[in-house]
This record gives sequence, structure tokens and C-alpha cells, in this order.
Amino acid sequence: MSEKTGPLSERARVRRVARRADYERETLNAIIDAAYVCHLAFTDQRGTHCIPTACWREGDYLYIHGSNGSQLIKAAALGAQVCLTITHIDGLVLARSAFHHSMNYRAAVIYGVCEEVEGEHKLESLDALVEKIAVGRSKEARRANAKERAATTVLRVALDEYSCKIRTGGPKDDDEDIDLPVWAGVLPLALVPVAAVPADERVDMPSYVAQWGHQG
Amino acid sequence: MSEKTGPLSERARVRRVARRADYERETLNAIIDAAYVCHLAFTDQRGTHCIPTACWREGDYLYIHGSNGSQLIKAAALGAQVCLTITHIDGLVLARSAFHHSMNYRAAVIYGVCEEVEGEHKLESLDALVEKIAVGRSKEARRANAKERAATTVLRVALDEYSCKIRTGGPKDDDEDIDLPVWAGVLPLALVPVAAVPADERVDMPSYVAQWGHQG
Repeated sequence: MSEKTGPLSERARVRRVARRADYERETLNAIIDAAYVCHLAFTDQRGTHCIPTACWREGDYLYIHGSNGSQLIKAAALGAQVCLTITHIDGLVLARSAFHHSMNYRAAVIYGVCEEVEGEHKLESLDALVEKIAVGRSKEARRANAKERAATTVLRVALDEYSCKIRTGGPKDDDEDIDLPVWAGVLPLALVPVAAVPADERVDMPSYVAQWGHQG
Repeated sequence: MSEKTGPLSERARVRRVARRADYERETLNAIIDAAYVCHLAFTDQRGTHCIPTACWREGDYLYIHGSNGSQLIKAAALGAQVCLTITHIDGLVLARSAFHHSMNYRAAVIYGVCEEVEGEHKLESLDALVEKIAVGRSKEARRANAKERAATTVLRVALDEYSCKIRTGGPKDDDEDIDLPVWAGVLPLALVPVAAVPADERVDMPSYVAQWGHQG
């Protein structure tokens, strides 16, 4: 992995198997852009929590949103320090020894404090979330009305303090284990689209729906 | 969703869209058993963190493991309160209105304090992790030796305080939006096996490898 850029904080520095660390913004962007959800950790008076939530990127920020009443959104909007983590599992790595079994993955860990997105930018950000699902869809679906906008909080975190960690490739066995009569290799996993399920037949499938399930 | 069993703590109670909450142990077990990783949140002197890590279940406990030197493992072994979250994404839900776009998912949020697993049980637990990857494999791969066992910490959390949240099915649009000329439905997603990649050709594929990529 590239280490041209170093860690942006001591907290974000990868310690275990540091050769897998990557602090490049292009790497971070690719991991975020491939994700539909992140796991957001925060701490309040009841303890430390970890909640999955939809996420999307615009430029140098990771965006999340939710109901104003959500515990996660309330804590994040009040300025709690948050940690947002995205993990893509790419495969199971089967080594000759139990100890060297591993996984292939792409993960990003982002630290920060949320700021609230308001006004016209809030509406544009919600459009960007719909566009992430399918390019062009924000022009098709009914846009949020005033009541819906008022019920929703949009937050963003600057992509300033983060680390990425990536594992690819086959097993790394110890030399003395290489000749053991044990199958070794990778069992890949992929999150793939499966054929779309229409709610009804009243509207023809847009191309992004017709193509869904034919990719991957 | 079933609500025969209620929340096990105020902290674990689902607040948003509570009809999607499920506190049944069978539901929790199914979500854990389908997962290769969880996201573990904990707080130390540097802040709140969220780190992906492999997980598996034995009976009434969720297990994790890692290098003794890992920050996550050290904090968890010292008795930090942890929150372990598993999320399976099953699809994107496209509604006629932007506001009602959603996702189908199965998520579990587990609160607790880790206890260390030691002695013979530690070795059996590491076998169970290998068995999760493929039934029978713990008898094939070289078992961890004394040095490898000593370098690894195995921790478990009792499945006492948790909630599950599940969304299935199509979009839930407002009545006044149903006739809008906007395609609505679900774009399903599935984490599926892709054909295995052998490290070399010296050992024949076991059946669990030959079948990988033909499932799902």
C-alpha cells in the first residue's frame, strides 16, 4: 500500500500491520464512494454506541442524515466526537495454518465532529444522496417538501483525520507450513446487485433499474 | 417484526421506527451467524473509536480476537464498555418521494463488557472461528502453536443487552405520491461468494472451496 501521505493524527495512525495502512485521499474517497452505509460511534451519558447509517461524500466531507429525533443525530449535532467507519469485505483468506487465516477488506476510519448542513445546501445534499443511489433520480423523485426537510437533520464531517487499511491477495503462510497438504487461497466475496423488484408495473423501469442485477 | 420479547435495557431500546425492532434471540443469532465482521466501538483516553473485526458466536456469547498489542483488544480486555454492531445491507428502497427512499437491512447492536477466554476454551474458540469459515477446516489447517496462541487474545461478550432492527419489503410512499410517474421498488444487494482463487495447485480443492461461488 502507498504510504506517500502519513497519518493525520496520532489517533488515526494504523498500529497493527501498519504496512496495510493508506492515508491517501483518493483511497479514502474510493472506499466512501463504494459504500451505502457507515458505522457511526459516539458516546453520550448512556455509554458508547455504534449505529449504522447511510453516508455519502461531497468533496472533502462525509455526509449523514436522519430524523431530528434520532439519538445518534442529536448527539452528533450537539458536537460529540464521532468515529465513522466503513468496511468492505472482499474475501476470506484461507492459509495452511489457522493463525494466518485472514480477510481481504477495504476499511476507512474517520474521526471528527459533525457540523449541521442548512438552507439550500441541505436540499442539495439530500439530492446528492438520491444521486448516489442512481444518477438522475433526484430529478425524478418528488423532492422533499418543507415539512420533510424540517424533520430531517443533515450533518457532515470534514475528511481531515482518517486512516484507511486494505488487505488484498492470497495467504501469507510461514515458510515451514507451505508444503502442508492443506488447500490455501482466497474465497472472494462481493456485494452485488440482484434483479430489481418493482413495487408495481405502472411506470417503466429507468435504465438504472433495468441494468441493476446485470452488473457485478 | 416480532416484539414478543422486549428490550433488555433502556440503552438497547430501538427508538426510531420502533416497529422494526426485534429483541428475539433467534433473530440476533441469525444476524450474527450470517456475519464475518462486526464494528466494535469503545472509548479510551484518545476518544471514541469504531473498528471492524472478525466475529463469531458460540451459544450465548459473541467472540472476537486479535493481537495482544491491538489498541482495540487492549481496551476491550481492560473492561471498557463496548458496543458491537453488525449490519447486513439487503437492498436500496426507491420510493416516489426522495424522503421515503430507504434501505432494507438486518442490524444488531450489542452492548457489554468483554471477558477474556483462556486455556483450552481459547483453543476451542479459535477452532470455532475457523469452522465458521468452513465446516471441517479446523481439522485440516495447522492448529495454532503455543507462540501463536500466546500472541492472540480471545474475548467474548454475553448476548444479554442488544437490539435488532430489520427492514424488508418495498417502499412506503405517502398516499398522495402513489400515482406520481416515478419508478418505485427495491434494488436488492447481496454479499455473494465469487469463484475461489487457489494460492497454488498442489492441493485439491475441498468441497467447501469447489462449491464457493456456486452458491448465492
